[in-house]
Amino acid sequence: MKHYAHINDLENLETTVQEAIGLKKNELKFESLGKGKTICLLFFNNSLRTRLSTQKAAQNLGLNTIVMNFGSEGWQLEYEDGVIMNQNKSEHIKEAAKVVAQYCDIVAIRAFASLTDKEKDEAEIVINSFKELSGIPVVNLESSCGHPLQALADAITMKENAARHKPKVVLSWAPHPKALPHAVANSFIDMMHLQDADFIITHPEGYDLNPEIVKDAKVEYDQEKAFKDADYIYVKNWSSYQNYGQVIPQEKNWTITADKMAKTNNAKFMHCLPVRRNVVVADEVIDSENSLVIEQANNRTYSAQIVLKKILENLG
Amino acid sequence: MKHYAHINDLENLETTVQEAIGLKKNELKFESLGKGKTICLLFFNNSLRTRLSTQKAAQNLGLNTIVMNFGSEGWQLEYEDGVIMNQNKSEHIKEAAKVVAQYCDIVAIRAFASLTDKEKDEAEIVINSFKELSGIPVVNLESSCGHPLQALADAITMKENAARHKPKVVLSWAPHPKALPHAVANSFIDMMHLQDADFIITHPEGYDLNPEIVKDAKVEYDQEKAFKDADYIYVKNWSSYQNYGQVIPQEKNWTITADKMAKTNNAKFMHCLPVRRNVVVADEVIDSENSLVIEQANNRTYSAQIVLKKILENLG
Amino acid sequence: MKHYAHINDLENLETTVQEAIGLKKNELKFESLGKGKTICLLFFNNSLRTRLSTQKAAQNLGLNTIVMNFGSEGWQLEYEDGVIMNQNKSEHIKEAAKVVAQYCDIVAIRAFASLTDKEKDEAEIVINSFKELSGIPVVNLESSCGHPLQALADAITMKENAARHKPKVVLSWAPHPKALPHAVANSFIDMMHLQDADFIITHPEGYDLNPEIVKDAKVEYDQEKAFKDADYIYVKNWSSYQNYGQVIPQEKNWTITADKMAKTNNAKFMHCLPVRRNVVVADEVIDSENSLVIEQANNRTYSAQIVLKKILENLG
Repeated sequence: MKHYAHINDLENLETTVQEAIGLKKNELKFESLGKGKTICLLFFNNSLRTRLSTQKAAQNLGLNTIVMNFGSEGWQLEYEDGVIMNQNKSEHIKEAAKVVAQYCDIVAIRAFASLTDKEKDEAEIVINSFKELSGIPVVNLESSCGHPLQALADAITMKENAARHKPKVVLSWAPHPKALPHAVANSFIDMMHLQDADFIITHPEGYDLNPEIVKDAKVEYDQEKAFKDADYIYVKNWSSYQNYGQVIPQEKNWTITADKMAKTNNAKFMHCLPVRRNVVVADEVIDSENSLVIEQANNRTYSAQIVLKKILENLG
Repeated sequence: MKHYAHINDLENLETTVQEAIGLKKNELKFESLGKGKTICLLFFNNSLRTRLSTQKAAQNLGLNTIVMNFGSEGWQLEYEDGVIMNQNKSEHIKEAAKVVAQYCDIVAIRAFASLTDKEKDEAEIVINSFKELSGIPVVNLESSCGHPLQALADAITMKENAARHKPKVVLSWAPHPKALPHAVANSFIDMMHLQDADFIITHPEGYDLNPEIVKDAKVEYDQEKAFKDADYIYVKNWSSYQNYGQVIPQEKNWTITADKMAKTNNAKFMHCLPVRRNVVVADEVIDSENSLVIEQANNRTYSAQIVLKKILENLG
Repeated sequence: MKHYAHINDLENLETTVQEAIGLKKNELKFESLGKGKTICLLFFNNSLRTRLSTQKAAQNLGLNTIVMNFGSEGWQLEYEDGVIMNQNKSEHIKEAAKVVAQYCDIVAIRAFASLTDKEKDEAEIVINSFKELSGIPVVNLESSCGHPLQALADAITMKENAARHKPKVVLSWAPHPKALPHAVANSFIDMMHLQDADFIITHPEGYDLNPEIVKDAKVEYDQEKAFKDADYIYVKNWSSYQNYGQVIPQEKNWTITADKMAKTNNAKFMHCLPVRRNVVVADEVIDSENSLVIEQANNRTYSAQIVLKKILENLG
């Protein structure tokens, strides 16, 4: 594996999940693999889990780690070709990507969607520019349209908490006071396409996700109907995709409550965090025994570690 | 020792001071103790000495260190139970504390007093939430009401500069242009309660500290009288405790000058830094041979290192 | 070598360049030299190349590294003697410099020119205060008037791309939308004074640099004339030195274009980055085979590494 920009960059999800579960039992087993090598973590947006878990994973592999908050510690980058750079952008990605690659062996990047320009967001200009220009492996720490380290951590968590062979998995939209990107939902769907499951996406009308990602996944606008007999309820807010980045007022209460969870097959509750309590999910649900959110966060370390391990092995 | 949130978390101050002085002579003696373990330093407020000395101490013990400025690199946390999180706080401490604990073995936290809500500040909600929820050892890098790593560094410095058996120690208030917390003064008093000394607190009327911390310590409103024959003058500004967080205009000049120091028994001058020169203390005093401020700063490393060593030994 | 504040702190530029080129071939050769030692990188201004390359160089030498953004993570420092510190500056350099030195063996500092007060800028108050007060080696990561790690990286790059014995080297001013400091140009000139070359500085009238730095270097106001038969075109914007920090409107287009490069002896194009494309230099030039900008950035690692190696060896 050269880059990890998308869950499909994994050769095989199932075996990767198994390897990650193995690593978790002996997390320092490959503590010399990264010796003398350096990873740069570039944050164009804030982060808690990703920031800490990726540093932990890198340290477990013996990698040197350099963290940079690009916005506050550096400056704005220009991504357009041929532009006369006489405004507020101090450096072109053509230099920045190549320069960063002089100082590290792997670069990991967080750069969220603008939610104002669908075309630009879908071009994944930050991560794709680094892939194209830097010449070194690029890891996605959440880009405009995907969060594949989260999806891999989710797959690990589901495997560890597996109930029956072909579980019913529901991805449910939930309310949120701010307009949020589609990245986590997209990558969860991408990941589910690689699983043998009865998978349903439920959300209010107007919140349909990108059809190129949803593909043939079943969509159900009735949340309670979707929840019936589910084994996993994976919850996430996202803003509208059609009315790109908009929050559409809607009447029905989509907050995840104990009453709704009671319709399921004693389902596990999952969320990538951070989560707005009593807006996205009621206290009673996230605090219940069926909540996997802390284990999902824990698995972010092993998701990152197995990805970095594969990249390091490929670097030789 | 599980946590270090208060000087009283030390089993024995006197032996800890002796151990720290020993460590200082051979600071890399335990450089393998922290191998494969990680400490997260979470800064909710700015820092110079604490930021650098705690990293140095952790490195001396072979600990991996992850530093995070929670405000600028993360987001605001909610601490209230049962709240509907539809405002500007993105994550609840119930998740954040448990999540951070997935990525490290020890968490160290700086979170200052608001100085607007005495009850909330005294609840020490940040550090106590991490203690209650994270399940890992918590180190106080200055909380609302205490700065026990500073107090331990002060005890080390006083031991190294010990004059006579039962010294006279004066904690003196001094002026400052801003309203400051009570944390340093509180922890110094807590520490002095564990020492065999003639201890006096001096400050203008209206600046009495929390009586539950002061206890039976002698308070003298006449600064010059307090200074008479003193061996140590420990200086710090704090805002009013009764009129919580207020700065009370007062006539008398409380700045520490050479004239005032001349009343003492050739006393050592101490301050935790940062200090406002010629407001808190005259140049002539802080620049004199009797000033211990740089040695106090130096001992912050060994104060942190002995605390982390004890926590690591307890982790096994 | 105790400090590296100026290129002249090197005992011998030529041998240092050769040693750096040697290090580059085996960058982990001295990976134990810094064991148990710590470097603090203090950034009073933003940085990309310097931030990453200095961390990389330190890691290559086995140094522990602590990075601090002084402005956002710490507070403002006072540098004047005898001041009554009742305004917005929380700590005096007299304490800060000595305190930082308690936690590290080497301190490296970035502190740009104000461009508002020539006398203050030329006093190099930040770096000189640390040199005077801290008692430990100080490395210049770009100060008001110099950027000697860049100049050393440039010397390495020119050596690696050497054409003929005594090359013609042109330092050319180029336009920029903002007022920029003189540091890079100054250090390049300082470095060229140590080289056997035909060296010319070209810029519009009104942009003459400090005569104490320019000395007997040839100045040519006609850019095209200066470019004739050049082997290296080193480009940089700077604001006026006489009308200190001002941008003087001027008609002629000083942007580096392919047409201008055609007048040279197939010259290499050099710039320290970040660069404003199509303002400072046309895409066609920076994207050409003759552009050395990425190699210059790469050599920042070896420039820092050879400097830190010499300082460590001197520390013993």
